[in-house]
Amino acid sequence: MSDTTHIPTLDDVARVAGVSTATVSRCLNEQQKVSAKTLERVMKTINDLGYTPNFNARAMAAKRTHTIGAIIPTMENAIFARGLQAFQETLHASGYNLLVSSSAYQPDLEAEQIRALVARGADGLLLIGYERGQDIYDYLQRRGVPTVLAWTSHPDGGHASVGFDNCAAMRMLADRVLAMGHRRIAVISGIVEGNDRAEGRLRGIRESLVAHGQDPDALPVIQTAYEIENGAAAFETLMAQDPRPTVVMCGNDVLAAGAISRAKHLGLAVPEDVSITGFDDIELASILHPTLTTVHVPHRDMGCIAAQELIDMVEKRSMGATRKLEVSLAMRESLRPVVEP
Amino acid sequence: MSDTTHIPTLDDVARVAGVSTATVSRCLNEQQKVSAKTLERVMKTINDLGYTPNFNARAMAAKRTHTIGAIIPTMENAIFARGLQAFQETLHASGYNLLVSSSAYQPDLEAEQIRALVARGADGLLLIGYERGQDIYDYLQRRGVPTVLAWTSHPDGGHASVGFDNCAAMRMLADRVLAMGHRRIAVISGIVEGNDRAEGRLRGIRESLVAHGQDPDALPVIQTAYEIENGAAAFETLMAQDPRPTVVMCGNDVLAAGAISRAKHLGLAVPEDVSITGFDDIELASILHPTLTTVHVPHRDMGCIAAQELIDMVEKRSMGATRKLEVSLAMRESLRPVVEP
Repeated sequence: MSDTTHIPTLDDVARVAGVSTATVSRCLNEQQKVSAKTLERVMKTINDLGYTPNFNARAMAAKRTHTIGAIIPTMENAIFARGLQAFQETLHASGYNLLVSSSAYQPDLEAEQIRALVARGADGLLLIGYERGQDIYDYLQRRGVPTVLAWTSHPDGGHASVGFDNCAAMRMLADRVLAMGHRRIAVISGIVEGNDRAEGRLRGIRESLVAHGQDPDALPVIQTAYEIENGAAAFETLMAQDPRPTVVMCGNDVLAAGAISRAKHLGLAVPEDVSITGFDDIELASILHPTLTTVHVPHRDMGCIAAQELIDMVEKRSMGATRKLEVSLAMRESLRPVVEP
Repeated sequence: MSDTTHIPTLDDVARVAGVSTATVSRCLNEQQKVSAKTLERVMKTINDLGYTPNFNARAMAAKRTHTIGAIIPTMENAIFARGLQAFQETLHASGYNLLVSSSAYQPDLEAEQIRALVARGADGLLLIGYERGQDIYDYLQRRGVPTVLAWTSHPDGGHASVGFDNCAAMRMLADRVLAMGHRRIAVISGIVEGNDRAEGRLRGIRESLVAHGQDPDALPVIQTAYEIENGAAAFETLMAQDPRPTVVMCGNDVLAAGAISRAKHLGLAVPEDVSITGFDDIELASILHPTLTTVHVPHRDMGCIAAQELIDMVEKRSMGATRKLEVSLAMRESLRPVVEP
């Protein structure tokens, strides 16, 4: 947050909209007393300027709310749970409260929630991934709200971030899969549109194929939302191919759990009949049967470091750093080398 | 929310503390300009009256923030995830945003987060369970913040709630376990202090024992936090008994997943060597190997109904109803009758 940032005030809105401050106030609190035309003009001005009611400039400049907001794509499965818990613990240790919203992987909803959290006085925000409209980044900068991006490493480094390179991480796993002799690879990917993590992981597999002289365009890929049942259905579709894949690489452990579960129902032994891999190393990965080979992401470290960086930005000790964390392969039972018949 | 509820204003604080409103304002925004003695008196008055800065009475009376707060005990595993997702979807459909906090099962932290969410302008709150200090219920009533309790059914019906009877639900499962001939039962329970759901489930097992002429005080119980690793460790301890249990009943599916995982490492076949049961029927339950016999809780229904009830209370169509949902047994592979040797 730059000290010279001008936080828009009620006066600014009144001046730009060409009405009295009382009228602006009525537009916010007693809309029935204002003409539709005036209301529209004032609300547009409020939006253009990024003015937030309930919080005047002096309050924002003079005191913190000690509330941090986080917007995660989903609360439904455990992908973000462990990192978020560590994030919250670190915030609490420094006297900050955490409020969490879930965007259901919808960019419009995320934008709305960012504005809501800023309106509710968030001192800073944690967002997942980097892919979102420039207007949102502009809004956050205009409002002077420190923001850290996590689960990602931003390619051009324009924002504070704490994460890892999703493409390189999945490529590392794909390299291993290819080194084990697999050539008939199929992929169950998350939906890549609007999700830079899913896009990076899929790209990592394709890059590995190219490096091994394989045709990346021949790779069978099903994109689906991260749910166990979706992983199961996609697995069944992919295994209906002739010849069938020797390995199914999944965009995360949730999809892989679905694939393993469906393999059992189809009477296919994992890894004897088909290997399956995941990504994330959530707790589930090591209690599945067979245990899941996956990419280990340091979720707790990521949460702790992101919280500390955000606190440092809010308390003006940091201008926003970028931290790239190392990931590793968790080699377990679900992947094995191709055995020649 | 009663229409006659008086929401404390800045004027009230000034009058009770015997200072000017400007002084109250300084205490909130420019503390360095106020003497320590005045600051202490004013802050105490603010606390006593339940006055929340950033939100004046007119704003609270005249307009909603369309923000609902939820405080759940943990984000770390999937216990609350599905219900919360349904809760959020129902809120969104009516134009409400959801902000979530996690209390880490700590009553003090929950109290702090309730105040923080009210201060951030929450129109209403979702809380889990009913066991908390009367001062918190008094505070919420004084502030006129509609509140729904979920995952519970409040015994004396004093609060709006949407949930189920944890004791009766677990008793139903214990009755079935006993009917299958099990007499050496051991329990891995959640920590019952401050957790009415865990307490109710454990009580359900004891009631079933009594009804079957067994001694409830002879029941081996390990209480532990809801984490997979804790379930595994407790299982190993319980199985070291001689004679060992024929069934280990777990306070939720997360603990049961840990127990199943450890059984495998110990070389014990489930259910041939020992039966294991859970509670919740989270998605994990049906992909474990063996699949988990558990109590099916209608998480999505509970989330939807709680959201609708809370919206109705905020919009003054309901004074706060109590809804008790039915649960059922999900009989799967991990429980089987005792086979006489």
